[in-house]
Amino acid sequence: MQTLNVDLGERSYPIHIGQNLLTQPLLAPFIKGRQVMVVSNETVAPLYLETLLAQLSGFQVDRVILPDGESFKTLEQIERIFDALLTQRHNRTTTLIALGGGVIGDMTGFAAACYQRGVAFIQVPTTLLSQVDSSVGGKTGVNHPLGKNMIGAFHQPQVVLADTSVLSTLPERELSAGLAEVIKYGLIHDVEFLTWLEQNMSPLRQRNPDALAYAIYRSCEIKAEMVALDERESGVRALLNLGHTFGHAIETDRGYGQWLHGEAVGAGMMMAADLSARLGWLSQADLDRVRRVLEAAGLPVVPPTEMSAERFLELMAVDKKVIDGNLRLVLLQCLGDAVVTDDFPVDALTATLTAGDALGQV
Amino acid sequence: MQTLNVDLGERSYPIHIGQNLLTQPLLAPFIKGRQVMVVSNETVAPLYLETLLAQLSGFQVDRVILPDGESFKTLEQIERIFDALLTQRHNRTTTLIALGGGVIGDMTGFAAACYQRGVAFIQVPTTLLSQVDSSVGGKTGVNHPLGKNMIGAFHQPQVVLADTSVLSTLPERELSAGLAEVIKYGLIHDVEFLTWLEQNMSPLRQRNPDALAYAIYRSCEIKAEMVALDERESGVRALLNLGHTFGHAIETDRGYGQWLHGEAVGAGMMMAADLSARLGWLSQADLDRVRRVLEAAGLPVVPPTEMSAERFLELMAVDKKVIDGNLRLVLLQCLGDAVVTDDFPVDALTATLTAGDALGQV
Repeated sequence: MQTLNVDLGERSYPIHIGQNLLTQPLLAPFIKGRQVMVVSNETVAPLYLETLLAQLSGFQVDRVILPDGESFKTLEQIERIFDALLTQRHNRTTTLIALGGGVIGDMTGFAAACYQRGVAFIQVPTTLLSQVDSSVGGKTGVNHPLGKNMIGAFHQPQVVLADTSVLSTLPERELSAGLAEVIKYGLIHDVEFLTWLEQNMSPLRQRNPDALAYAIYRSCEIKAEMVALDERESGVRALLNLGHTFGHAIETDRGYGQWLHGEAVGAGMMMAADLSARLGWLSQADLDRVRRVLEAAGLPVVPPTEMSAERFLELMAVDKKVIDGNLRLVLLQCLGDAVVTDDFPVDALTATLTAGDALGQV
Repeated sequence: MQTLNVDLGERSYPIHIGQNLLTQPLLAPFIKGRQVMVVSNETVAPLYLETLLAQLSGFQVDRVILPDGESFKTLEQIERIFDALLTQRHNRTTTLIALGGGVIGDMTGFAAACYQRGVAFIQVPTTLLSQVDSSVGGKTGVNHPLGKNMIGAFHQPQVVLADTSVLSTLPERELSAGLAEVIKYGLIHDVEFLTWLEQNMSPLRQRNPDALAYAIYRSCEIKAEMVALDERESGVRALLNLGHTFGHAIETDRGYGQWLHGEAVGAGMMMAADLSARLGWLSQADLDRVRRVLEAAGLPVVPPTEMSAERFLELMAVDKKVIDGNLRLVLLQCLGDAVVTDDFPVDALTATLTAGDALGQV
């Protein structure tokens, strides 16, 4: 087991990464009161809930099992968590434990942020995506019909357990979606890590534990470094949104859950790379590398053919990264170095949005 | 106009107190972006919304008018604020302005805390209660059918405008409810202020602007001092809940809005004083003073006759002040000095809960 410390002053917390973590006594030291509410979903609970509960003897343990999927990441489902907490009389010293992917993590964290104005929570992410992304950084929240993650809070967990063993039951498509975020860290911050990913995509997709552990560790390390510099996302942390403005538009257009978040981010990163090349920042060879590594991870590299440039612009205009009417995007100055900018010709953006199958050939 | 600074480091903010503040250019300096969402209710908006809007020329100003009353302090109504923000495309630089009493202030503050994980907000409290209580300290939130203020966040405003002129349209009963919280500050922290209140209850109820301004200033000053010491309510701030554990039980039993919050707190403070006397901390003369000042303010001094001791205990058990099963109450060691304690005989509590009309005679 490796442990990474996310340095946020009094809100610092450790991320444990390794095999068979769920069967070890790693949770109890982080539970301050005697009440625990485990939040999971209908897919994950049958697989791992009993294993988790075996480590929680001696506590009052209650549970909420929510339906599985991004379409249930709503205030309405959050109310079910509040109902359970109040019905079971959980007080301010309770600890919420999220057992599931990013949706469960985001919702449980938000419920913990709001219940009695803030209680403790623990993340046990069960997808590669949530292990490398949504369990690090304290972002919590739910979707609104008019925009993804529009309602939420910053709330840090007490500890994160990233158990590589649970990835054995992860569907192929979701593994690929997680790899999209892993590739993102290489693209925005570490070209050597990108090279390592190009060389290790096959063992990663075969779920080699050592390869997964390294990919998770390095991804969390890069994210933790950026979050520590900028907890409230006013500066460098925005670089973590590479591909996300395009990706969120795809997810919103398709309806939540049709494209997985990582798939939308995969296509979105290709669009960001394409626009970066149109600005003269990436070469055709760079673009080819981006497309190949995304394809090797099993990800889409073009947006849905049904989405027009107008539709993209309409949906991107309500994105959180819009400041006072200017569309700000994360683009690549070179592989391994990202920048936030609103300084690009509209024609270049339009060319990217209308490229279709020719995306990545500029 | 007097200005009190609430000292919370980088979250510090001023409270302006005085006559005709709404007609002065006091808001614009605290609005950082160009978008403003005014949240008000159907009672207050017809009286003061246009006056407020006259100070907001040059901004994109949108509005949400909610129904009036504690029974609408729900997540469902909060969603109307989110809907308006997203439909009007408000971004992260937007500022929410709460124009109304405590319900509007708490809901607007909570919406601001959650919208895009936190945007700015301004409090323009229009009731005495909200001017002295809910606009100071950063507590925001909504009710749940199983408990008051169970869902919320700590979120500080940019500025508070406590305009004594708007109290001219406040119903008599709501003025009295506000005076309950004013009396509370005297009881928990400042017996000289309590004496001043005993001597000035008549001008206060006649809405003398100078008397009101002093009562508001001193109340906010005491609260600000306690909040600054303890922003997250782990210690001294809990003393501000004198009468609230009993009061919340009354409000929950009656259904939100049947007893005004201040009325329930009035009876609750009488119950806390009664229990304090049973512990030997207050004399009969002290109890008589508490009852007389509450009565002079036009407040109830006994709980609803329908509420049994069992019902009180059942409802108090889910109160936020319950820590690991022990009922903690704010009691008075003497007039002007409160303490949080779980060290009292159950018999004494039961005697208070069953005293009925004999409450305050021990």
